[in-house]
Amino acid sequence: MDIALRRGFIWPSFEIYGGVGGFYDFGPLGTILKNKIIQKWRDYYVFGEGFFEIDSPSVTPEEVLKASGHVDHFLDAMTECQKCGAAFRVADVAREATGKDVEGMSRHEMEQFMQEHRVRCPDCGGELGPVFDFNAMFRTTIGPGAKRVAYLRPETAQAMFIDFKRLQRHARGKLPFGVVQIGKGYRNEISPRQGIIRLREFTMAEAEVFFDPDDPHHPKFSDVASEELRLWLAGDQERGKKLLNEVTAEQAVKKKLVCNELMGYYLALTKRFLIDLGIPSGAIRFRQQTPGQRAHYSAETWDAEVSTERFGWVEVAGLAYRTDYDLSRHAKSSGEDLTVFSADKKRKVMCHVVEPSYGIDRPLYCVLEHALVQEKNRTYLRLKKDMAPIEVGVFPLISRDGLPEKALAVYEGLRGKGLMAEYDDSGSIGRRYARADEVGTPYCVTIDHQTLRDGTVTIRDRDTTRQIRVGIEKLSNVLCSLLRDEVSFMDAGEAVKKRGGS
Amino acid sequence: MDIALRRGFIWPSFEIYGGVGGFYDFGPLGTILKNKIIQKWRDYYVFGEGFFEIDSPSVTPEEVLKASGHVDHFLDAMTECQKCGAAFRVADVAREATGKDVEGMSRHEMEQFMQEHRVRCPDCGGELGPVFDFNAMFRTTIGPGAKRVAYLRPETAQAMFIDFKRLQRHARGKLPFGVVQIGKGYRNEISPRQGIIRLREFTMAEAEVFFDPDDPHHPKFSDVASEELRLWLAGDQERGKKLLNEVTAEQAVKKKLVCNELMGYYLALTKRFLIDLGIPSGAIRFRQQTPGQRAHYSAETWDAEVSTERFGWVEVAGLAYRTDYDLSRHAKSSGEDLTVFSADKKRKVMCHVVEPSYGIDRPLYCVLEHALVQEKNRTYLRLKKDMAPIEVGVFPLISRDGLPEKALAVYEGLRGKGLMAEYDDSGSIGRRYARADEVGTPYCVTIDHQTLRDGTVTIRDRDTTRQIRVGIEKLSNVLCSLLRDEVSFMDAGEAVKKRGGS
Repeated sequence: MDIALRRGFIWPSFEIYGGVGGFYDFGPLGTILKNKIIQKWRDYYVFGEGFFEIDSPSVTPEEVLKASGHVDHFLDAMTECQKCGAAFRVADVAREATGKDVEGMSRHEMEQFMQEHRVRCPDCGGELGPVFDFNAMFRTTIGPGAKRVAYLRPETAQAMFIDFKRLQRHARGKLPFGVVQIGKGYRNEISPRQGIIRLREFTMAEAEVFFDPDDPHHPKFSDVASEELRLWLAGDQERGKKLLNEVTAEQAVKKKLVCNELMGYYLALTKRFLIDLGIPSGAIRFRQQTPGQRAHYSAETWDAEVSTERFGWVEVAGLAYRTDYDLSRHAKSSGEDLTVFSADKKRKVMCHVVEPSYGIDRPLYCVLEHALVQEKNRTYLRLKKDMAPIEVGVFPLISRDGLPEKALAVYEGLRGKGLMAEYDDSGSIGRRYARADEVGTPYCVTIDHQTLRDGTVTIRDRDTTRQIRVGIEKLSNVLCSLLRDEVSFMDAGEAVKKRGGS
Repeated sequence: MDIALRRGFIWPSFEIYGGVGGFYDFGPLGTILKNKIIQKWRDYYVFGEGFFEIDSPSVTPEEVLKASGHVDHFLDAMTECQKCGAAFRVADVAREATGKDVEGMSRHEMEQFMQEHRVRCPDCGGELGPVFDFNAMFRTTIGPGAKRVAYLRPETAQAMFIDFKRLQRHARGKLPFGVVQIGKGYRNEISPRQGIIRLREFTMAEAEVFFDPDDPHHPKFSDVASEELRLWLAGDQERGKKLLNEVTAEQAVKKKLVCNELMGYYLALTKRFLIDLGIPSGAIRFRQQTPGQRAHYSAETWDAEVSTERFGWVEVAGLAYRTDYDLSRHAKSSGEDLTVFSADKKRKVMCHVVEPSYGIDRPLYCVLEHALVQEKNRTYLRLKKDMAPIEVGVFPLISRDGLPEKALAVYEGLRGKGLMAEYDDSGSIGRRYARADEVGTPYCVTIDHQTLRDGTVTIRDRDTTRQIRVGIEKLSNVLCSLLRDEVSFMDAGEAVKKRGGS
């Protein structure tokens, strides 16, 4: 978090005004990384799966969220300190005080639990008052006056249900078909205290996969059938067992550990996506939510969780079997027919939905934490090369003798070839390497006196700190090959004997 | 607009619930186009200018927007019909009824104007009531209770001022430097009635260029010095003159038609960007806002306007000279020192700001309207090839004899090479070409019986409807070359004699 703050990955929002809990800014490097995560997600879901992407407003009129069940069910149990007046989410104070999970309990059971365990105000030690419901949506009004109530969307999913008629026409009635949306989601948390993990405004990437409930097959299931999944079943959690079922996607479907083949497919795809971001497969598990934990619309939910040092296991994606809940509710509320005519079966079908829903901010944090390497002499981010915000640093060895001018020309040349290069001429060369390491820049190019003589520069490798020399005319090609892992580092140029300090 | 609705570019939001004015969804093709516009903007401002991109929340606490002046000045003059109760923006009803512009008038002058010109309710003809101020920000509260008031940001700019200290450290004190943000902006319009042109929630791309007021130079000004600009000066508008000053960017700066060199540079860059989207240069002008029209923070504003058939001249970007207004206000309100130490001048500098601020939704509409070609026999979108949502359509000539299987293999092969291909086998080949034309797909590949014999397919060119034959093994390379304009169409394969109907 120190590097994240200092080097422009993540900053507390509204910092000069004291900050507000649950809001973070992405700085220059964080924004590049975030955009890379989003782009990779698009590669998987829009390009790979062939899903349609849409883009809808975040301000959502009340009738939509009444129909979707969020006005009645998107609630947090809340309590206030009788002494200092601070407000808390009951589940948070209960877990902090007892390590136990009260989600799924009734309000009355929660009050009993709090009394039994003598849970007090974490701020002042005062007594906590009664438990009541707080709707966790941000509320606003559209236009003048208070007539038209609206909320900031708690998920991007609803637009994909509301637009279903137009979308299935776009898909020309073919089933299954998928729709995605990437954008902001909002949750008006009561008193968030977990940094980037518990945000009031966050970026989501959600896919709704519409299918005939009689035919929950994925055409490319065989591609993922042998992918190993680590599943923590709801029943085992309820029995207090930490046991993980290690099964292939195929076995998970066959043994009915997951509701259908589509769910099995998207669990496997989620694992691949997370690994592709740079998260080690050993740090990934899928936890099945217990019935009490599930959202009102879901018949089965799997949380993809990543192990972290700072926050323990962190949920980074949720895969829900939403059945026909949403389409049926919107059909009823709006009076529109939201079935689709199946050309194969010659009948109308009310589609069911499997929803892989990803956060973007939390995986970003996990990527940074898992990339961090602290060695005796240096600290660096071992980011996957395709995730590094800066691809190459360009440094003049010293700030005179024409080296800065030459280095700037090299830098401009690399940018012109589409490489994300950064120029840095301040401080010793060792400090500049350290700065580049700290933000995960895979390669650094240094222009020295030999450059002026023979037109060669050094390239330094982040992970090994080894160096090679290559001619400037080949530099952009060599760097592109290195970034794409098409050539090994030591084969890409002439080895340089290591100097002290660099 | 018919094609836009029917083919998945733009849809009214919440349509099954009757829709809400000022909200639109982007459908599958619209979202691709929107993402391409955003990506091109990044190419200009992040990659080309080397600016830093950040990403901050849309929910903004009141103290920030109090300091920025938006709580006091982001107002719309409003009036209500005494008979039917409908609410209107005064400037809109006045313009609709009289063709005249009342912006910049005091509330009292507006009332007099409305009486003199007998402006009545456009819905029922009833009398309109007094003019009063409506704050056009969406209001909400953070956390439980009503204590912490917040608004949805009216512009993305404020985060870049609030984060200034961290940003200038990231820039290592170098001036000028620029910061951008791409994201949602909100304006709670009173009663928007201009479709996609007057949105309550929209996507913006804004750049804040921080500079020493004694040194408003752009290092690459010479690159744009000879760019021709068509300027409509505020003075000429006030004198009722339609005259456009046609000058180069260099002349505009020298003759002091624009406030400084940075403004001249970004006017020229804006023109280039719009042309690069596919808007003809003859449809672009820059209108200088009159003092009454300018936002409270601006000392000089230029609106980039595009001529459209449906909405007349449409503002697609605004370039404002914000001086040190925002940084000074935030420094005062927060108590933080927001100056920067200039290494060159050995003194503290309070930066001034030139802000190129672009809408994304309006240019998207303009791109579609300007691409539309209606000929006797067909309608097509002559989109620039790099803006087309679908790059290539893949069709089996008929739906039997193994042609669909072969066509699907070709389709998958093209997707595998990174081409945005779409497969279509429904309806006659003529209808499929017409559908592809209608959404601006530059090339269509057809698999016919000859394909089975000799492994060649036809490629059809959208603009000329001419066809060539090429071997499947060369297909993706040929299409890439064509899309990048590296080869002329008729040189890319063997000419095919035109058949009727295609």
